[in-house]
Amino acid sequence: MKFDASHEMEALKETQVASEEIFDGFILHVKKDLVALPNGETAYREIIRHIGAVCVIPVTEKNEVITERQYRYPIGRVTTEIPAGKLDSREEDRLSAIQRELREETGFSADEWTFLGDFYGAPAYSDERISMYMARKLHRGERELDDDEFLDVFTIPLQELVEDVMSGKIEDAKTQTAILKAARILGI
Amino acid sequence: MKFDASHEMEALKETQVASEEIFDGFILHVKKDLVALPNGETAYREIIRHIGAVCVIPVTEKNEVITERQYRYPIGRVTTEIPAGKLDSREEDRLSAIQRELREETGFSADEWTFLGDFYGAPAYSDERISMYMARKLHRGERELDDDEFLDVFTIPLQELVEDVMSGKIEDAKTQTAILKAARILGI
Repeated sequence: MKFDASHEMEALKETQVASEEIFDGFILHVKKDLVALPNGETAYREIIRHIGAVCVIPVTEKNEVITERQYRYPIGRVTTEIPAGKLDSREEDRLSAIQRELREETGFSADEWTFLGDFYGAPAYSDERISMYMARKLHRGERELDDDEFLDVFTIPLQELVEDVMSGKIEDAKTQTAILKAARILGI
Repeated sequence: MKFDASHEMEALKETQVASEEIFDGFILHVKKDLVALPNGETAYREIIRHIGAVCVIPVTEKNEVITERQYRYPIGRVTTEIPAGKLDSREEDRLSAIQRELREETGFSADEWTFLGDFYGAPAYSDERISMYMARKLHRGERELDDDEFLDVFTIPLQELVEDVMSGKIEDAKTQTAILKAARILGI
């Protein structure tokens, strides 16, 4: 499938007319921009600027996955997720960042890393880009959680996680995609 | 895998201490909450309240998918996505909402709808819940786009979309998951 890039830009592009900073927080940077639409009209776009993030599905030799259970305040419950974390800066090397997060949150390091692609969780209103990896040849070490970080670590068979994704039991977006991508690569 | 719910709530839960409204926009509602952590310390949580959304992967009898190309202002480019839209209210019936969105954006209606599960794109800072469906037995009709809505509609083989997800070419989160779920269900 080929797309006509010049047509697309003419027919679909929105151009910034004005930009208002709404909130400059620690994690969320909120802006309200006035944009020109393809038909010449204008509209407001409320958007989040996010520093970016990384995540990893760590798979053992027995095809088990290192997962985390973590309280997610915005939705008011504990979710099953793969290890992930924010970048320290927009320029930080993404592979180094996820290697650090995996080690700190679970104690594991890994000899084999496969890039699974990038991931925009809400491109309608957020620029958060999550880079996704699979880690294999794992080595267990010690966890080093941040002072304000609370999470439990569990090892769950990939096959069981695939069933939990397909049944709707796993709700986190990046975790759903990473499980289905890893299962497809590993033939599970 | 079973989790100990009472342990989890004690060990992981964060409790609201105070809440400040930062921005009450059309789409984004931003709050900054002070929360009590499991160790008794406090921390700030910057969060988005979102009305909720729905999406659908419409698959033809020939296993082709109705997709959209749409300019996403926060990331500054056109993306390939499945049809989706916001709810009109938090109480709106989600299946009716996605049936309306599919008809308005692509002109298609469908006789067979399968719920594929819910999806949180950024549970660390947003409560946006996207309900995901697969639609089959499609009928073509007329599009009825909103005045400020600009998008192109393309039909692409599911097999080709799976390759584009696995290679990292498709960046939108819900689209990646929906393609991999549909492919798994349809044995592709």
